[in-house]
Amino acid sequence: MHSLVALVTLLSVALFFWMGADVARARIRFGVHAPAVTGHPDFERHFRVQANTAEGLPLFLPSLWLFALTLDGLRSSDLGDKIAAALGLVWIIGRVMYMRSYVRDPASRGLGFGVQALASLLLLIGGLFAIVWGFVKTGL
Amino acid sequence: MHSLVALVTLLSVALFFWMGADVARARIRFGVHAPAVTGHPDFERHFRVQANTAEGLPLFLPSLWLFALTLDGLRSSDLGDKIAAALGLVWIIGRVMYMRSYVRDPASRGLGFGVQALASLLLLIGGLFAIVWGFVKTGL
Amino acid sequence: MHSLVALVTLLSVALFFWMGADVARARIRFGVHAPAVTGHPDFERHFRVQANTAEGLPLFLPSLWLFALTLDGLRSSDLGDKIAAALGLVWIIGRVMYMRSYVRDPASRGLGFGVQALASLLLLIGGLFAIVWGFVKTGL
Repeated sequence: MHSLVALVTLLSVALFFWMGADVARARIRFGVHAPAVTGHPDFERHFRVQANTAEGLPLFLPSLWLFALTLDGLRSSDLGDKIAAALGLVWIIGRVMYMRSYVRDPASRGLGFGVQALASLLLLIGGLFAIVWGFVKTGL
Repeated sequence: MHSLVALVTLLSVALFFWMGADVARARIRFGVHAPAVTGHPDFERHFRVQANTAEGLPLFLPSLWLFALTLDGLRSSDLGDKIAAALGLVWIIGRVMYMRSYVRDPASRGLGFGVQALASLLLLIGGLFAIVWGFVKTGL
Repeated sequence: MHSLVALVTLLSVALFFWMGADVARARIRFGVHAPAVTGHPDFERHFRVQANTAEGLPLFLPSLWLFALTLDGLRSSDLGDKIAAALGLVWIIGRVMYMRSYVRDPASRGLGFGVQALASLLLLIGGLFAIVWGFVKTGL
């Protein structure tokens, strides 16, 4: 049932929900009223953390699931679920680091960004390999 | 087959497609040319409705599906499909309220936003409970 | 296993990853420092390509998968996988055209945008038809 990947998925979107609440608080704190999303540099930091993560999810979630489903479909095991969930936890940790460092100083956001980007990239490349492996194995 | 959740998914993305077309119309009407996304407060209302909904979908759709799939996997029923689809309809109604109120007056967007946020949050928390329940039931 | 749709999904998110790297390069080249996302019109072109594609993925990916899964569930074939994957390739080609034309001249972005929007719309409408057909066939 890929329970570990399901759990990591919901934890990642729970973090994303938290970032959205953080933007709402920052709107009040820095006096930036909708529809504006600029006007105070500190508000923009909170806003960009959430916006960048919104852009990261359509990359992360499909890669996470296709890595796990394809690998486990080929091997009839739950190894893909475990590896994908572990990389998903790395993604979550990277996004927390990104959020904390970006708000403190945007120039320091690189490490957290790199951690989550690497996790996404490994899931994406691993998923592509698993699909191609499946084509070779079954003769397309 | 989770047909109800599938239907609600496609209705929610059809609404999102409509919001995108609405932004294109607003670009022409208020004379805001790409790549600019600011410059006329009324355009920005239309733009933010669609952008905020784009950010809401990666939260809503994974929660919707994992709630339905996990609950129905545990109970071998289609109750999860029905409850999730009902909450998904609430999400769609909330997003329509949000769109209509935001364009009229951004300060009035709270109710519609709250309705869809509550639907997403119930799906997310319900999904997390179902996964943890599954771990307890099967002894991980 | 819907291997073709899985492959197209990962290729589309790989393209999206590339667009994100392109924004990072444009930040350096045009001297736009985070959290700003405006300040140089040429940077804004690169930024909007990626942002618009981020908004397109939550429309494209659910439509792609529900079209393939619903059609193949009804017919017990892999025709849905093949048609969806072909339309998905059209989406990817449209997004590449969009990216190239938008960066050159935003006013010329219409054709590429139209190609990918049409692919998404056909998948969305096809998926809705397949679900309704399923309801009719099984008597809900």
